[in-house]
Amino acid sequence: MQTQLSDLDISQILADEAERAILPHFRALPEVENKAATGFDPVTVADRAAERAIRDRLAALLPADGVLGEEYPPTEGTSGRTWVLDPIDGTRAFMAGLPTWGVLIALAEAGVPTVGMMAQPFVGERFYAAKGAGAFHAWSRGTEPMRTRRCARLADAVVACTALDHFDPRMRETLDALSRICRLVRFGTDCYGYAMLAAGHVDIVFEAGLKPFDIAPFVPIVEEAGGVLVDRAGAPIAPHVMGAYSGDGIAVGDPALLDALIAEMR
Amino acid sequence: MQTQLSDLDISQILADEAERAILPHFRALPEVENKAATGFDPVTVADRAAERAIRDRLAALLPADGVLGEEYPPTEGTSGRTWVLDPIDGTRAFMAGLPTWGVLIALAEAGVPTVGMMAQPFVGERFYAAKGAGAFHAWSRGTEPMRTRRCARLADAVVACTALDHFDPRMRETLDALSRICRLVRFGTDCYGYAMLAAGHVDIVFEAGLKPFDIAPFVPIVEEAGGVLVDRAGAPIAPHVMGAYSGDGIAVGDPALLDALIAEMR
Repeated sequence: MQTQLSDLDISQILADEAERAILPHFRALPEVENKAATGFDPVTVADRAAERAIRDRLAALLPADGVLGEEYPPTEGTSGRTWVLDPIDGTRAFMAGLPTWGVLIALAEAGVPTVGMMAQPFVGERFYAAKGAGAFHAWSRGTEPMRTRRCARLADAVVACTALDHFDPRMRETLDALSRICRLVRFGTDCYGYAMLAAGHVDIVFEAGLKPFDIAPFVPIVEEAGGVLVDRAGAPIAPHVMGAYSGDGIAVGDPALLDALIAEMR
Repeated sequence: MQTQLSDLDISQILADEAERAILPHFRALPEVENKAATGFDPVTVADRAAERAIRDRLAALLPADGVLGEEYPPTEGTSGRTWVLDPIDGTRAFMAGLPTWGVLIALAEAGVPTVGMMAQPFVGERFYAAKGAGAFHAWSRGTEPMRTRRCARLADAVVACTALDHFDPRMRETLDALSRICRLVRFGTDCYGYAMLAAGHVDIVFEAGLKPFDIAPFVPIVEEAGGVLVDRAGAPIAPHVMGAYSGDGIAVGDPALLDALIAEMR
């Protein structure tokens, strides 16, 4: 009799690799190089070492699968499956020593993310999901299924957002409106915003200018937890995130909140 | 022969009390009440329980000392010493489930903070200092002395800031300028901004609208680590923080950076 690792099992193994590569560099940063010619987009030694470790492990475990990561050129694969990697999401948090970055890993099949993993090794917790199998939070209190919470009114909503850098004037106006209307807006959230939405502590995540690897894991994580992930027009991003992706990552924990939020964005 | 607990020892015991009271409520929040008539200022059950526990412990250990906290009326004491409490700094982070809040405890003697403690029980780390005795970081890698890092140019500086809510237009302009000039600005930092400055990962903390209990512990923590803590005119806040305090909390890890920063604020 043979048993086989699930894709979720694989994502756990890949997260282990990334954590081992990254953690020794946290709060012990060497020099940082500037990746982009304009603007600020730091790459750390840890980021590259982790992506290298994940890619090596994937090549051994699932050589037919493709890989899309931030640090190395994409590999196509022959299976129609692609692993999507962002070893350190929240590079600014990482650089500032804050424990709110995360290792992001997703599997996309036929262009749609079906497995999502976020790991935070310094805090010691993981958030993950597989399409049809549910979303889970593994932490000091055990491993628990995640469900978004009910929140049908903007006035009751806790809003998470990273920074205004990627917002055009229309998005800034909407965020200003949410700051007035909603219960609170919390900045500097990165991947933790989506994780906390899935876990039922945040009601809205408001982001733009994302890359596929920033958001792919949260398609299954947010959807399996009961939330929705849309662009500023309110259209689900799942079908487009690996293709002509707008970069919007607007998540709502309670789908009943979506219409009110879309109205604010118009 | 008798030995006596130091004030730093006492602050550790008080932090233990607060942690025990708070941690069961983290990510398991009951209803939140709105304390202020206007604006948002959440008080959690955890916040009150922790301040109660600290006050009870202080009353038993050091009955002659005064206590100033956010949740209960101040007590004067007869010793000329005052313990300054903010059981949950970063209430928004706490409410959103993010592990970036902290327990803040300070001792002020003759109006000047001499002992400072920040504890983060979910992550499992503490940052503390006593005037003349140094600043320390106790975490998974042991207990280490803290030193701010060298950073003499704004262009190299990592800047931490919580949110823009408390900034007047002049402060917003300065932050905009820092966003353009500095290496990066990280939002949503609360007490962690000062802790990371003391530990050498952040170069500037830029805050306004603070209360004494938000900042008092960081007077010894930042100063003992080698940094300076000033208002927008560049004057040290230490002598005023318990009295006619402006609410500014501008910290610089490398004193050589101060002149350039003050020039930006003018």
